[in-house]
Amino acid sequence: MQRRRFLKGAGITAGLATVALPSLAQDTPTVKWRMATNWPKSLDAMFGSADELCQRVSVLTGGKFEIRAFAGGDIVPPAQSLDAVGEGTVECNHVLASAYFGKNTAFAFDTGLPFGMNARQHNAWVQYGGGRALLEKLYGQYNIKPFICGNSAVQMGGWYRKEIKSLDDLKGLKMRVGGVGGMVMQKLGVLPQQIPTSDIYPSLEKGTIDAAEWIGPYDDEKLGLNKIASHYYAPGWWEGSASITSMVNAKAWADLPPLYQAAFECACNEQTLKMLAKYDASNPPALKKLIANGAKVAYFPRDVMDAAWKASNELFAELAGKNPDFKEIWGPWSSFRRDEVSWFRVAESALDNFTASVVGKEA
Amino acid sequence: MQRRRFLKGAGITAGLATVALPSLAQDTPTVKWRMATNWPKSLDAMFGSADELCQRVSVLTGGKFEIRAFAGGDIVPPAQSLDAVGEGTVECNHVLASAYFGKNTAFAFDTGLPFGMNARQHNAWVQYGGGRALLEKLYGQYNIKPFICGNSAVQMGGWYRKEIKSLDDLKGLKMRVGGVGGMVMQKLGVLPQQIPTSDIYPSLEKGTIDAAEWIGPYDDEKLGLNKIASHYYAPGWWEGSASITSMVNAKAWADLPPLYQAAFECACNEQTLKMLAKYDASNPPALKKLIANGAKVAYFPRDVMDAAWKASNELFAELAGKNPDFKEIWGPWSSFRRDEVSWFRVAESALDNFTASVVGKEA
Repeated sequence: MQRRRFLKGAGITAGLATVALPSLAQDTPTVKWRMATNWPKSLDAMFGSADELCQRVSVLTGGKFEIRAFAGGDIVPPAQSLDAVGEGTVECNHVLASAYFGKNTAFAFDTGLPFGMNARQHNAWVQYGGGRALLEKLYGQYNIKPFICGNSAVQMGGWYRKEIKSLDDLKGLKMRVGGVGGMVMQKLGVLPQQIPTSDIYPSLEKGTIDAAEWIGPYDDEKLGLNKIASHYYAPGWWEGSASITSMVNAKAWADLPPLYQAAFECACNEQTLKMLAKYDASNPPALKKLIANGAKVAYFPRDVMDAAWKASNELFAELAGKNPDFKEIWGPWSSFRRDEVSWFRVAESALDNFTASVVGKEA
Repeated sequence: MQRRRFLKGAGITAGLATVALPSLAQDTPTVKWRMATNWPKSLDAMFGSADELCQRVSVLTGGKFEIRAFAGGDIVPPAQSLDAVGEGTVECNHVLASAYFGKNTAFAFDTGLPFGMNARQHNAWVQYGGGRALLEKLYGQYNIKPFICGNSAVQMGGWYRKEIKSLDDLKGLKMRVGGVGGMVMQKLGVLPQQIPTSDIYPSLEKGTIDAAEWIGPYDDEKLGLNKIASHYYAPGWWEGSASITSMVNAKAWADLPPLYQAAFECACNEQTLKMLAKYDASNPPALKKLIANGAKVAYFPRDVMDAAWKASNELFAELAGKNPDFKEIWGPWSSFRRDEVSWFRVAESALDNFTASVVGKEA
């Protein structure tokens, strides 16, 4: 019905211009969507971004296209969110696609892989590097159209009750770590544990687990893990960056007037910029606060990083061997990453590294 | 007139909801703006982004708010673009604010300073770090409201006819380099030259100048400077990133309906993401092509970087002493940069650097 109403509007416009622009005519349809996020409202950088996205779309359509963001579990259990969008139970969601790794390992490319592209490189890949077409083909199998709508950037490597001096210290460690990172950690001797967020603190406190990864300083600070597992490691190598996706039901998308599609897409791109800016602005003061409250920040030892890199490549080869979808994206993705890394070495990282070596040491 | 027409529309909407949303009513005004860019159309990443911005705004307003982007010099000489916007001769422009450094040195903060924040840090500062309020206060003196609408990221350090082995090799060098970078280079013994883009190639070929900086691989490749000055240095330390600004006449902005304001702002944020993604995707293949055609890529020697850092800080102290606007922004800007650099050292750069040390060396 929405589709028919729009087509009528488009017909009117078509008489006015050779390029058929969507019309602001009074018969623009009222559309109401629900967005199932995977975030509690306390994750305000993520839930807040979903909410801002919905508000922007509303303003851009004069209140005619209303999307309401729901907290994780309020309307759909997080594990079923992809299916709910594909089946049209909800029109869209706001998630880390890697949560659906169990359904198709290739979804990891949409979020980020161990030692994968950083936030800028990932956006470049999706927007101008052929990534969008590959991801749309993957999601097409599930009647879904994906949109990047945020990024938390590189996260931290988690909280540990004991210092990690070398790779040996990881062996036998019970750690709350999921997804692809958990699979790599397992190859390093860690025993990955699946524990809901609310149980992280008590589990670490009791010693049921020895370590836990969550997000980065801004979100981690709220959990207070520094009080019970003070060793805070960097970097969170299991994702080069963590890109957030809004999956949209393909039919619901096709039914939207072009103006509403443009509003949604533009608002998603805006939030990709803004969520990253929010994390980049919020992490530094949170890290200072954590350090003031006992967090001992350190880098993973080099042997851990080297072993994780080796184990990640083994895992990718296994996944490519088992899943044609993974294999199809792996080739062009790796090639794009190699070129990006080569270029970032030349200008971007060279200047970042020099600046890091002098800023704060001014006379 | 536009303002009155909108207010009438807003009044109608106000009866329908407690929150006054802009209306998609049929009486939304037709608004036509001109955007004076400072780019030739051949700089397609920059001019193309301005054009995409205008097209997005048009689609988001059903063709009612039309902005037309003009190539540099077509309607306003680039040097007069800021004045033209402030006086309302054109409604908006699309420029590097540092071009107006001669009018007020504090405009450099809007584009980027030597050893300043990278693209992500700059966006974080403007969006969530207090930067927007400071910049809006600065621009308010000129009846202008500024919007970030793109970024070229870290650029290259230019093309040199001879190898730069140490700081001594810069002394007496005639180099095409402008703005703040030129002032720092002058402190290092370089003789900065102001030369229009079209004269760079012949001037380098004839030896009228010894070196020239332009942008980065993607744009530089079109000029063909590798054929006559093959030493290509990195990084372009004179801007931590080069942020693009659309300056909007304050009255023209205030006269816009909120929906049109939202469309413009959302499209600017989208282009900030997309221009950066476009450069990040386009620079790597262009750099390969340049190298294949004789470019010798190298880093500036450490003594050049150290001297440039020292000279930059001297310059900043001089500028802060002379210009209260510069001084007002310098304090909070430096403090934000220090915190960002500290945080990027922990996670972002640590992972970038590790990845750079292993990618491309897989078995």
